[in-house]
Amino acid sequence: MNHPYPKVLEDLMELLRSLPGVGRRSAERMAMSFFSWDGEKLEALALLLAELKKRVGTCSVCGNLADTAEGTPLCPICASPVRDASLLCIVENTPQIRSIEASGSFRGVYHVLGGRLAPLEGKGVESITLDALEKRLESGAFREVILALSPDVEGQATSVFLANRLARFSLRISRLAQGLPAGSDLSYADPATIAAALSGRTSFDREEK
Amino acid sequence: MNHPYPKVLEDLMELLRSLPGVGRRSAERMAMSFFSWDGEKLEALALLLAELKKRVGTCSVCGNLADTAEGTPLCPICASPVRDASLLCIVENTPQIRSIEASGSFRGVYHVLGGRLAPLEGKGVESITLDALEKRLESGAFREVILALSPDVEGQATSVFLANRLARFSLRISRLAQGLPAGSDLSYADPATIAAALSGRTSFDREEK
Repeated sequence: MNHPYPKVLEDLMELLRSLPGVGRRSAERMAMSFFSWDGEKLEALALLLAELKKRVGTCSVCGNLADTAEGTPLCPICASPVRDASLLCIVENTPQIRSIEASGSFRGVYHVLGGRLAPLEGKGVESITLDALEKRLESGAFREVILALSPDVEGQATSVFLANRLARFSLRISRLAQGLPAGSDLSYADPATIAAALSGRTSFDREEK
Repeated sequence: MNHPYPKVLEDLMELLRSLPGVGRRSAERMAMSFFSWDGEKLEALALLLAELKKRVGTCSVCGNLADTAEGTPLCPICASPVRDASLLCIVENTPQIRSIEASGSFRGVYHVLGGRLAPLEGKGVESITLDALEKRLESGAFREVILALSPDVEGQATSVFLANRLARFSLRISRLAQGLPAGSDLSYADPATIAAALSGRTSFDREEK
């Protein structure tokens, strides 16, 4: 026998509950917090949300998030003159670009697949941006493709599929190393990770760049 | 050296970070989740937020949240013909009305103070709705006032202040019982709670209604 909120607040909570990890309680807290904001701030938020889809698009080259303010969307990475345009890193989605950029170790460009092969969920080649990828590679501008998919079953299957599919291009195809995460404790590493770290072991004097 | 999001997304995250308990990471997750919503749903949310202040107001009688759709805002409780209009429960804020309503044990009406006295924070009588409260009591329509403030230092001080201030009206002034919370373990009760439960002990044969 709950005392109802005014309709607008109930509607607002209903929508907020579809955010990941937001349940009834959090939605209430968020809605009441929005209600306590001053009118200008609320309208600024409303405007941002209403324009989100119009002002953010995907890069016409790689599929990364891009500001659509200046006509054809081109992401900052594709637009940058200092990136190595002959080195292509293939990722599943745009947040992974941020993760790789945060490492500060990659100076090439990206291609966003927009998913990965998952036959059991009915996701085949038509669900990823394979055509666009092959079109980019046909330009002959690339010397290496790095398959940066997650090292789980579907990610690996997708990598194997891509490696076979892209074999016709004359370029190096590599993938991210598997092994122990930096700063981890060997005692807690799972067997598959230790196996990967052993088979991919590097000579001690070899300097990684 | 973080890869920047498009401007709109950065602005959106900035705003979301001012929600309670939402940090950089949660704001990112929320913003990306909003971005994945379809346009219609986003516009519905934007509209709700933009109209929040217009469509939700405070009840002109008690200060509870009220739908302003039908002219003068009157909350469902003040508008209800079945509530006991001679029993007034004084609370600090509107969420507390929900807590009390959820107990299903109160059939009177409310008055929202909008805060409590906190001299150290510079919050005096002008920060609470004392004038409106006294005006309501002057009507003579009430037989009892229940002080339902939180049993902490400031809440108790505010209760004492109000009890003195309202002594001139001929009505019973009561406050919520202090004691052990329902379902709690006596071993973990703090000394102040046990002291309150002892001094407020009730006869075993007395039936609480």
